[in-house]
Amino acid sequence: MNAILTIGELLLRLTPPCGVRLTDAENFSVRFGGSEANVATALSGFGEKSRFVTALPEGELGQAAENSLRRCGVDTRFCVRAKGRMGLYYYEQGASLRAGRVIYDRAGSVFAQTPVSAYPLAEALEGVRHLHLSGITPALGSYAAALCLLALKEAKSRGCSTSFDLNYRADLWSEEEAKKAFGALFPFVDLCIASSDGLGILGLSPAGTDPAACRAAAKEIKERYGFRAAALTVRESVSASLNRLSGVLYGEEAYFSPVFTVDIADRVGGGDAFAAGLLHALLRGAAGGEAIAFAAAANAYKHTLYGDNFCVPAEEIDAVLRGDTRLRR
Amino acid sequence: MNAILTIGELLLRLTPPCGVRLTDAENFSVRFGGSEANVATALSGFGEKSRFVTALPEGELGQAAENSLRRCGVDTRFCVRAKGRMGLYYYEQGASLRAGRVIYDRAGSVFAQTPVSAYPLAEALEGVRHLHLSGITPALGSYAAALCLLALKEAKSRGCSTSFDLNYRADLWSEEEAKKAFGALFPFVDLCIASSDGLGILGLSPAGTDPAACRAAAKEIKERYGFRAAALTVRESVSASLNRLSGVLYGEEAYFSPVFTVDIADRVGGGDAFAAGLLHALLRGAAGGEAIAFAAAANAYKHTLYGDNFCVPAEEIDAVLRGDTRLRR
Amino acid sequence: MNAILTIGELLLRLTPPCGVRLTDAENFSVRFGGSEANVATALSGFGEKSRFVTALPEGELGQAAENSLRRCGVDTRFCVRAKGRMGLYYYEQGASLRAGRVIYDRAGSVFAQTPVSAYPLAEALEGVRHLHLSGITPALGSYAAALCLLALKEAKSRGCSTSFDLNYRADLWSEEEAKKAFGALFPFVDLCIASSDGLGILGLSPAGTDPAACRAAAKEIKERYGFRAAALTVRESVSASLNRLSGVLYGEEAYFSPVFTVDIADRVGGGDAFAAGLLHALLRGAAGGEAIAFAAAANAYKHTLYGDNFCVPAEEIDAVLRGDTRLRR
Amino acid sequence: MNAILTIGELLLRLTPPCGVRLTDAENFSVRFGGSEANVATALSGFGEKSRFVTALPEGELGQAAENSLRRCGVDTRFCVRAKGRMGLYYYEQGASLRAGRVIYDRAGSVFAQTPVSAYPLAEALEGVRHLHLSGITPALGSYAAALCLLALKEAKSRGCSTSFDLNYRADLWSEEEAKKAFGALFPFVDLCIASSDGLGILGLSPAGTDPAACRAAAKEIKERYGFRAAALTVRESVSASLNRLSGVLYGEEAYFSPVFTVDIADRVGGGDAFAAGLLHALLRGAAGGEAIAFAAAANAYKHTLYGDNFCVPAEEIDAVLRGDTRLRR
Amino acid sequence: MNAILTIGELLLRLTPPCGVRLTDAENFSVRFGGSEANVATALSGFGEKSRFVTALPEGELGQAAENSLRRCGVDTRFCVRAKGRMGLYYYEQGASLRAGRVIYDRAGSVFAQTPVSAYPLAEALEGVRHLHLSGITPALGSYAAALCLLALKEAKSRGCSTSFDLNYRADLWSEEEAKKAFGALFPFVDLCIASSDGLGILGLSPAGTDPAACRAAAKEIKERYGFRAAALTVRESVSASLNRLSGVLYGEEAYFSPVFTVDIADRVGGGDAFAAGLLHALLRGAAGGEAIAFAAAANAYKHTLYGDNFCVPAEEIDAVLRGDTRLRR
Amino acid sequence: MNAILTIGELLLRLTPPCGVRLTDAENFSVRFGGSEANVATALSGFGEKSRFVTALPEGELGQAAENSLRRCGVDTRFCVRAKGRMGLYYYEQGASLRAGRVIYDRAGSVFAQTPVSAYPLAEALEGVRHLHLSGITPALGSYAAALCLLALKEAKSRGCSTSFDLNYRADLWSEEEAKKAFGALFPFVDLCIASSDGLGILGLSPAGTDPAACRAAAKEIKERYGFRAAALTVRESVSASLNRLSGVLYGEEAYFSPVFTVDIADRVGGGDAFAAGLLHALLRGAAGGEAIAFAAAANAYKHTLYGDNFCVPAEEIDAVLRGDTRLRR
Repeated sequence: MNAILTIGELLLRLTPPCGVRLTDAENFSVRFGGSEANVATALSGFGEKSRFVTALPEGELGQAAENSLRRCGVDTRFCVRAKGRMGLYYYEQGASLRAGRVIYDRAGSVFAQTPVSAYPLAEALEGVRHLHLSGITPALGSYAAALCLLALKEAKSRGCSTSFDLNYRADLWSEEEAKKAFGALFPFVDLCIASSDGLGILGLSPAGTDPAACRAAAKEIKERYGFRAAALTVRESVSASLNRLSGVLYGEEAYFSPVFTVDIADRVGGGDAFAAGLLHALLRGAAGGEAIAFAAAANAYKHTLYGDNFCVPAEEIDAVLRGDTRLRR
Repeated sequence: MNAILTIGELLLRLTPPCGVRLTDAENFSVRFGGSEANVATALSGFGEKSRFVTALPEGELGQAAENSLRRCGVDTRFCVRAKGRMGLYYYEQGASLRAGRVIYDRAGSVFAQTPVSAYPLAEALEGVRHLHLSGITPALGSYAAALCLLALKEAKSRGCSTSFDLNYRADLWSEEEAKKAFGALFPFVDLCIASSDGLGILGLSPAGTDPAACRAAAKEIKERYGFRAAALTVRESVSASLNRLSGVLYGEEAYFSPVFTVDIADRVGGGDAFAAGLLHALLRGAAGGEAIAFAAAANAYKHTLYGDNFCVPAEEIDAVLRGDTRLRR
Repeated sequence: MNAILTIGELLLRLTPPCGVRLTDAENFSVRFGGSEANVATALSGFGEKSRFVTALPEGELGQAAENSLRRCGVDTRFCVRAKGRMGLYYYEQGASLRAGRVIYDRAGSVFAQTPVSAYPLAEALEGVRHLHLSGITPALGSYAAALCLLALKEAKSRGCSTSFDLNYRADLWSEEEAKKAFGALFPFVDLCIASSDGLGILGLSPAGTDPAACRAAAKEIKERYGFRAAALTVRESVSASLNRLSGVLYGEEAYFSPVFTVDIADRVGGGDAFAAGLLHALLRGAAGGEAIAFAAAANAYKHTLYGDNFCVPAEEIDAVLRGDTRLRR
Repeated sequence: MNAILTIGELLLRLTPPCGVRLTDAENFSVRFGGSEANVATALSGFGEKSRFVTALPEGELGQAAENSLRRCGVDTRFCVRAKGRMGLYYYEQGASLRAGRVIYDRAGSVFAQTPVSAYPLAEALEGVRHLHLSGITPALGSYAAALCLLALKEAKSRGCSTSFDLNYRADLWSEEEAKKAFGALFPFVDLCIASSDGLGILGLSPAGTDPAACRAAAKEIKERYGFRAAALTVRESVSASLNRLSGVLYGEEAYFSPVFTVDIADRVGGGDAFAAGLLHALLRGAAGGEAIAFAAAANAYKHTLYGDNFCVPAEEIDAVLRGDTRLRR
Repeated sequence: MNAILTIGELLLRLTPPCGVRLTDAENFSVRFGGSEANVATALSGFGEKSRFVTALPEGELGQAAENSLRRCGVDTRFCVRAKGRMGLYYYEQGASLRAGRVIYDRAGSVFAQTPVSAYPLAEALEGVRHLHLSGITPALGSYAAALCLLALKEAKSRGCSTSFDLNYRADLWSEEEAKKAFGALFPFVDLCIASSDGLGILGLSPAGTDPAACRAAAKEIKERYGFRAAALTVRESVSASLNRLSGVLYGEEAYFSPVFTVDIADRVGGGDAFAAGLLHALLRGAAGGEAIAFAAAANAYKHTLYGDNFCVPAEEIDAVLRGDTRLRR
Repeated sequence: MNAILTIGELLLRLTPPCGVRLTDAENFSVRFGGSEANVATALSGFGEKSRFVTALPEGELGQAAENSLRRCGVDTRFCVRAKGRMGLYYYEQGASLRAGRVIYDRAGSVFAQTPVSAYPLAEALEGVRHLHLSGITPALGSYAAALCLLALKEAKSRGCSTSFDLNYRADLWSEEEAKKAFGALFPFVDLCIASSDGLGILGLSPAGTDPAACRAAAKEIKERYGFRAAALTVRESVSASLNRLSGVLYGEEAYFSPVFTVDIADRVGGGDAFAAGLLHALLRGAAGGEAIAFAAAANAYKHTLYGDNFCVPAEEIDAVLRGDTRLRR
């Protein structure tokens, strides 16, 4: 009874080399990622038993996607394979004063077109203590939204704790739609994670990097929706190559992480590392301050590694917290 | 009044390195190709003024696709840019006794969703002497089928000659559907190109590599539909790495090319090189035997080069015809 | 009760690009392989539940090795992690009249230094129906030899069937030593696999490619040691780039596979694909002729793919048996 | 009547990977660039109709060079092909406290050896509203110098506006020679562009990064030679990886751009992006402050992208001016 | 009588691409390095005649290792070839707040197992004016320790000057063992080099970046052991990507280098570049301040280049000392 | 008195990846080669002391060129460094029915412009027993031709034996010019090497692959010019990927090598491997049949390896002669 389950879409990610625009690419690196899958791989790295449920295309591409999770030790036995296309996205990395760019091509994917009934949800929830979802999934269509609601209900009915990362994507739906969909899910959520700049869907102003504003926002979120806790990721974009990252957790009171200044190798999946770090720490019984520090350090550390699939031992995050950057021999 | 126009879909092609399966790929090479576009680039290489009409997505990917043609000297001024997704395909190269594999992901592409009225067809046909289409396009939906019919009619009404490469793709539609669609187009076609193994859509048995059967099939096709000429590409697959390639042209009589034995570097686009070679030779007034030899040699030569975008000077095809493979200094 | 267990050493494999000698390499591709692990990944690809037991170094390299198996779906839960070095080998691919070259650097590896008691053998054998070992393992030292003997005994006592691939490596020990060690294991082996050219350790002359000699050798092996069956892999090395591969199985009578002519992309692991193909076919109840054909085809197919980790669906082997090398769309 | 014409030499550029010296390179990336060609590609990206005139070698290398411009939409119809060698340069990128290095190998190139009479100058100037040249060309020999003078005269006689980027290269000629050659061209130039550190050829002291000195220098240049405007690029080299870039334009009065701090991916072609940005803005009727800001932002943005061929939509420069470096989804 | 001899182990170095962890590597770059060999290549670059003595495995890997030195002009005639394994290490580069990682796999290497008598020490010392060793070698076993002692004695008896870089490696032995071994060698050493943070083996506290503490430590080392001079490398690790580097030399008095701030491309071998720079400067008769500046600049410059084999002309270090980072044309 | 000296030009070689034309290359591999330098590296691999004399540009490129020889153990102490450009060539590899292509760009190179007096010829000939030249050098201009004549005279006056490989390059000069230049050198040549297809400069018909014709031609060459021996390389180009290679030596009588069928990885430098193999064998006292077999096997083996710098142990050629292509473990 100790597995953590995440559910969502896994996308093929196509990325040109650094310093090359999508328009000029001769090669794409091939990775697979998705917010919830990234949380699962990161949790596995931290030593948790993680499990992922999705729908993937039959054949070689679906197999490649599943393999990318299996290699990180994620349990994929409950993934569904069906005819259809692999959702994908193109990712051009930014640098310095050039912003990065994501172009999604996920409409009509096999995940968006798989009905809830196709998933072995009951089996997938067996032995699970925690369920994590994100706000991307309900945006992917009615099937996906229904899957979220059902999974949360089932999880709560079995006594699992739950978490939800808002992850609002403006290209997928309007703030109005998101607000409504999230409202239906919130009653089944214990821990809510949001970005301090992306609170508009909750009707709140961006809290930016101001500690007081972040504290107030986290408190408001927690109390308004009755969550057991709310956490904010805080990002100051000095440039596309340099960010300052931190986090705030509000449970009974507010806990602030240190601020980590990081040169960016790949920023996609940072928020997922944050979520995984927070879950890992809290589920292991860490205190609030320790948990938010671990989460923010995981986020920062992810930024130094290429690719979505972040899967490192917890000791490496501890080294970040110690601030030790000397060569280890 | 000397340009050659081709119309069709341009696809992003994603290919793992040789000897690596799609399932195991860490990198994809990025190319753009499509039967009609390949004909346009090959014609440009041979010294023809070629022009291509398609619909491409706005933004970086559409730009990359257009650039791949512009660099080969293809006139892309009449291409349309619109919101939507880039059609694509995954191509795993075969080798020896392992067959190659193509996985299409083109449903819902911007080309499939662009209505005929969006194309500046009249302008695109100005100064054009020949129009080339292929059987892939009418398979892509009603918009695309209507575009084919309109373009052929317009071209004929302006006195252009026309050609059509059957290019039957079983994954896109049934033989029944193809037969019907082709039937509507054939009255406006002067030169018909087919594969000697893919004559089922015309209700004929595969002609394989047998000269007599090929001659009979080409004659039958020409005469049944009233084309001015019919040509067949002939492929003997010794293995996925070694093919023997030739061609047959039937105009007033039958002309056979030599048989070219070729070690395969990349076989996609071979048929398009054949079509371009045939058009180039015939439009320059070559005799039947010379024309089919040039076409088959272009096909074989294409197999020795990586990528869809085949764009080489006609002199290199002449060298193939001379059988000279010594290092040129 | 349907898993297949293999036990052995997993090695880091370092390979320069094709056409580049070890002396001149600027880059090595990084793979992990080992005869028994290769059998496990191939079985997983064919749809079997496969499990692998080994000892790996703690830290990043051991994790990388384990990940290479997990991604193929091999159950690695019973692998041991300990302090020590990762065994490795350098592999320079041959081509044409240039022979390939393997340089082993596995002495003192963590696998060689892990005592039998460190392995959770009982747990690892739970739910297992078949155990596969190879002659490399007993050559790696007394710990490894003891592990083989214990595993075979335990397996037989639990009613598992067993197989053993001679895999004699002259760089590891003498024929004399091998003969003695194998003799201790043979009483617990049901199926014995050998190379038709490597029968010296059994005191037999090389059988080469001669069917009668191969049949006689397989019969002799089976009967002399009381195996339930014996199989031979047969290789004719036309050049380092071109081989002709086949196999012979002797159960109640002799079964011969077709001969597959293959252009070689990477020949390491071919014998392991043969073993996996044979086990898969026999355990699914295939007849002798069908089984040896599947095994030989798997061997040949492996030669067309780069890397040790051969993991493809059984349908692709079926395509080889059909001799179909046309591009699949 | 809206095309912009640039004339100059196009060079093959050979660059080792980052962090590798020319002495140690195993691979060179292959690009084509040249000050005036870079201006043409950048203008095309900004939406202008740009045209380039040069002489290129016959055969594959000249074709590759021309293709690099065609893919960016530059009109190359008036380029000349002749027997001769391709000029080239080796470029080792600097980093941190290691300076970058350019080694030219352009002597005796086909461009340097092509007489003025070989160029279809009259045709090339048809429909042209602006001509841009740089100080590199007259340094390449008497043919090239004569081409500059003739082109400027012809352009002015047809009512085109003109610009000239000093681009003094100490390896090509002495300050004395440059001064004399420039003096002959200046009467036909409307807009003069220089580097604030490279004013020695005009007999002025380096203006460095001091606004007052830059303003004075630009004013002096404009007034002394009777240009309609003079612009300075301003570069502070914090290190080979970090520069601060800005610009000054003096028309009726002085306009200063913001200062852009940029991490450098590739600094070659920055000045050309500046020139293209300035021309684009001024020819579209932008005010002085807006134009110099766009020019400096284009320069900075170029530094974040690999290669000479800078070809991006004007909207991306606008994003730089807004200072928005967040990931765009 | 002007060669400089260094003796030690040469290791194969395996490094994944930047931003990729050892666990995830698909490719390793292949380099050879070792503290003393690095000093030899750097000295050769600076124009010195350098010579290196080691033991290497027979066959392709040993040849590759020797070639890596020969190409830099190091005299390898006195290297020994014997049966055995190539020592190696895995190096994962750090970045930003992620520390780099070295995993050694050198136990049982051919160098560790070659007895002193196998080396042609007398011949190797002919024509030598200076011998340089490092503290890594005596840690590699009794053979290697004996080789150090004998070489130092022989060198002194022939009138050579000598230097010794402490290079304490905690993974190889204890401080206690090192202290004892070093004590036996110190009587034969003229110049001692240490890291300001690694003085524990001498029973001193870390001197860090504090000038006074560094001066005191260098003085204490020099005087306690009777060296002619002692030098300290000083490193402030702002992050794994950014260091501030300097040095202190204590001869008759203390000399401080400037502090160089460097973005790190590859930090392995920095200390060896420091040692080579110091030896080159002192042996050419540079004054103390000049010598320590050259040494520290060489260290910093090495950090901007990929790989162990640092081999650049002395003029490039002079450019660093001038602080000139502008592009050189 | 046992070194072998070769003299000639060393060129930078730029090659796109296999299957990619020069026109489409994004990357060039960087190698250095030249007929005489290739002979020197091959001889070094075979265990000879080889020495090379040339003139190279100052700076990084000349250093890279020299390093490429030093790493193979070639003595480069007598190379000259001077201001000037590096000669180079572009090499597009052929495949199957596509011929390879070499584009030279060596006019005005530093070698062509270095006068004879600049070379330390006397020192370079000290300790030399054999001098090898090729017909490329006298084609490079009067300086280079004079260098050949002087070197041959000096060598003979010192008692060295000499060899000369005709290596006629039609792009460098006419048959008439070559004939005249060669005539001046022949009196000082002992061993003459030619291609059986390139005998036109000697006024002989191509001997092709016919043994009798080859024997007659070799005999005629030997006797007409009074050489001590003449050797012919014989190549049958089945395709650009497959050649059949052999050789004929005529001393007192004719010796024929076996015919080696080889799949080609890189054919440049094959003739140089032949020359080196022949010299190595003859200088070691091999009999005629043994020598020509070793030479032809070296030629064939070279074709299986990428790059000009062929440097392998003689044992690998012996393995080719044994026809053993099995994997060596």
